[in-house]
Amino acid sequence: MNSHVFDQAIALELQSDGSFAGHTSAAYANMVGPFGGISAAQMMNAVLMHPDRLGEPVSLTINFAAALEPGPFVVQARAARTNRSTQHWMIEVLQKGETVLTGTAFTALRRDTWGVDEDTMPQCPPPDQTPHGKGPMPMEWIKQYDMRPIAGAMPLVWDGSGDTSLTQLWVRDNPPRPLDFASLTALSDVFFPRIFVRRATLVPVGTVTMTIYFHADSSQLQASGSSYLLAQARAQSFRNGYFDHTAQLWNEAGVLLVTTHQVVYYKS
Amino acid sequence: MNSHVFDQAIALELQSDGSFAGHTSAAYANMVGPFGGISAAQMMNAVLMHPDRLGEPVSLTINFAAALEPGPFVVQARAARTNRSTQHWMIEVLQKGETVLTGTAFTALRRDTWGVDEDTMPQCPPPDQTPHGKGPMPMEWIKQYDMRPIAGAMPLVWDGSGDTSLTQLWVRDNPPRPLDFASLTALSDVFFPRIFVRRATLVPVGTVTMTIYFHADSSQLQASGSSYLLAQARAQSFRNGYFDHTAQLWNEAGVLLVTTHQVVYYKS
Repeated sequence: MNSHVFDQAIALELQSDGSFAGHTSAAYANMVGPFGGISAAQMMNAVLMHPDRLGEPVSLTINFAAALEPGPFVVQARAARTNRSTQHWMIEVLQKGETVLTGTAFTALRRDTWGVDEDTMPQCPPPDQTPHGKGPMPMEWIKQYDMRPIAGAMPLVWDGSGDTSLTQLWVRDNPPRPLDFASLTALSDVFFPRIFVRRATLVPVGTVTMTIYFHADSSQLQASGSSYLLAQARAQSFRNGYFDHTAQLWNEAGVLLVTTHQVVYYKS
Repeated sequence: MNSHVFDQAIALELQSDGSFAGHTSAAYANMVGPFGGISAAQMMNAVLMHPDRLGEPVSLTINFAAALEPGPFVVQARAARTNRSTQHWMIEVLQKGETVLTGTAFTALRRDTWGVDEDTMPQCPPPDQTPHGKGPMPMEWIKQYDMRPIAGAMPLVWDGSGDTSLTQLWVRDNPPRPLDFASLTALSDVFFPRIFVRRATLVPVGTVTMTIYFHADSSQLQASGSSYLLAQARAQSFRNGYFDHTAQLWNEAGVLLVTTHQVVYYKS
């Protein structure tokens, strides 16, 4: 039996009505509610575990409608359309009958084709020459990741300075765990809010929507093993209460595994 | 009464069961099924017209589950969660009882905050010094847009050359029409497939999912009027049957209106 804290956190039980029962994880708690990445991984896991699933994840969109309270939740995942080699999912997560997360996913049987990564991995020092991050990080979920910032780390001085929101870091599960679609889903949300980097100012924030595009198939994830991922994120616009970011995750061999985007609420 | 071809195409009628009835538009036909942007605008319009709607669009994700057949369709839009100033929508479009599109949207009341565009508009010649695009474009929907390519135009010779997928163009409705959320939704899908630029090779393609982040509110769209938008798109990865692209649309004044992403199926 796999006893990694991540596997415990995403565990779901199939119910007689076809829904899945899960429970929030204290190990992945954020300031308010859970780490968004673990909610996304729980949602993804409902699709991965679903008896009707066809193929592997190509995209996932998750919308954070309300902060989950500590306790049980229900995931309803429905294959809205199944084609010959593709499938479209509608997903809803509920607590006490109220919707807390919504989402859609696209899965597909993939086959070998011509391909190229147009976004190549930036030149960075290797993980073993990149020290761990410093600074006060009281959130529980941070402890479940080994993060080694290269650029755009969490500010140590909140002085309102900054002219770019670019962050680059090496990251993997702590303790190490072989990469799969569920853990890659969670890792896609590992970035702290871009406004903290751009302004060096602490303001209330919360992700409202995140989309993940999986470029890798399961064999490429297996080949990544438990090595570090190079994760990079940058905002494109901060405007009237919401900013976005666009991000990429490569494995140590330089294969682009994921491109991912999100919109974050901020008060300012 | 507004008789612009776009308004005719996105027209919906509220039904007694709360759903909306619409009809595909011959003017926006693509090679197979409708132009994806017009389907996205029809879906967006159901939220915009919905009597329960709170606030303005901040994000929309649309998944293309099947090519729509010419004829009527039904849009089911449901406010899955309404908070004090935000709202989460689940949307499904059906033809003959079968799901053809799925989606989610996030709307919000926005207020003035500190902000900055980190992605500034690239230096480009103005629209009136940029000639119209050339080349054979048999699709009906192309006629509904005034497109003026700056870089990465549709190849005139299909010789397998190319080393970047970057496209930049000026674009607006043809005839001109004041910008609003519905038309901006459609314009966000105006890019032809990145693989055509990167490889100068014609292969079967089809968008499977698209996400749009609206950075502008309605007053900023109004200020854009019917001027041109600078639209830019670039792929990040082509792999095993699917590629992505990441794109931005600025108005002529240089305000970033939208960042948008999609995944496209390709055969190769």
